[in-house]
Amino acid sequence: MDAPSRRVEVKRAAERANYDRAVIDAILDEALICHVGIITAEGHPVVIPTIHARDGDTVYMHGSPASRLLRTMNPGAEICLTVTLLDGIVVARSAFHHSMNYRSVVVIGTARIVDDPAEKLAALELVTDHVVPGRWAQCRPVTEKEIKGTLVTALSLDEASAKIRTGGPIDDEEDYELPIWAGVIPLELTPGARVPDDRILDGVDMPPNVATYSRG
Amino acid sequence: MDAPSRRVEVKRAAERANYDRAVIDAILDEALICHVGIITAEGHPVVIPTIHARDGDTVYMHGSPASRLLRTMNPGAEICLTVTLLDGIVVARSAFHHSMNYRSVVVIGTARIVDDPAEKLAALELVTDHVVPGRWAQCRPVTEKEIKGTLVTALSLDEASAKIRTGGPIDDEEDYELPIWAGVIPLELTPGARVPDDRILDGVDMPPNVATYSRG
Repeated sequence: MDAPSRRVEVKRAAERANYDRAVIDAILDEALICHVGIITAEGHPVVIPTIHARDGDTVYMHGSPASRLLRTMNPGAEICLTVTLLDGIVVARSAFHHSMNYRSVVVIGTARIVDDPAEKLAALELVTDHVVPGRWAQCRPVTEKEIKGTLVTALSLDEASAKIRTGGPIDDEEDYELPIWAGVIPLELTPGARVPDDRILDGVDMPPNVATYSRG
Repeated sequence: MDAPSRRVEVKRAAERANYDRAVIDAILDEALICHVGIITAEGHPVVIPTIHARDGDTVYMHGSPASRLLRTMNPGAEICLTVTLLDGIVVARSAFHHSMNYRSVVVIGTARIVDDPAEKLAALELVTDHVVPGRWAQCRPVTEKEIKGTLVTALSLDEASAKIRTGGPIDDEEDYELPIWAGVIPLELTPGARVPDDRILDGVDMPPNVATYSRG
């Protein structure tokens, strides 16, 4: 499959490229946060972490990058949204062949401020449920004031690419004779013991989506 | 403590800002990867994940962003390096007050290509040991060709800031009367069962830095 545009084409280690939307979507959906790169009015790049959620061909971004975008961005200016899932450390026999196993996605496009109240409400539900599936329905309903006080931006997935490395180290052939351990240290983002708020009312149990939370 | 420059000053949720270099350094040192934002020759931003390591007031970056920088960047162009450590999901009684616990650092400055062979060698050792402490000394020595074939860039920490959120949800006062669970799901990047390479020589054991690997 070809890259959707030259600027999201993976040039380095091109064998790791993947332009399949199903693959791209799965990475975006698993990643808890993204890093959004913008160009400020002063002309330098800024990269800000935020939460996101995908709806079909659109990625919605929540909050602060949007506010910075609004303050500094020229209308129509392009942004880059990148997500990276770290899957492991590849330990090779030479320092040179050390690597990471990862799945990353890069999206380039023009961000749009979401003004339509219905689209904005739907995006906030998506972002909330992206972080904790099923959480939106458990919450106190959102107010008009809260919707107005939150900034949401949208980015099309028209120009997106994935880059993926999997598997063990690939050493130089002569290095396999060396008495050096090699392999992979898998990495996973895992939840720890839940910390209940001090002021939960008596008789309110932890919901299953929190109790059994996992990612990926 | 004041921000070192206006452009790395934390504007939103300013109470989460931290400009203490010891705090900034600890976040950079714990983070396995960073996201580097550059402006391409075509004038749009690109954000690329890579590995890094800090040496005093300098952050070194490895590999592919450097190559993209070299291809597309004007000499003297500024970049932004951001790292984000995800510490937890803050589950509130309202969707609006959901949040993440995190520690992030933003560094803005002009990247420098590391040409000096001694500095480059030292940077490669730092980056290797940043990912797996003590690994450099366990590896087959690096060759001249490998050093030449690797790109390393350096960024000063003169303009850096941290932003940190910790603790539980902060709900609207009236929402504490609602029968809704709230609290924190802590998150941690944890290593899984090591996957030894198929071709490790007989009698070669897993070294302790791999066997007991942990982050943070």
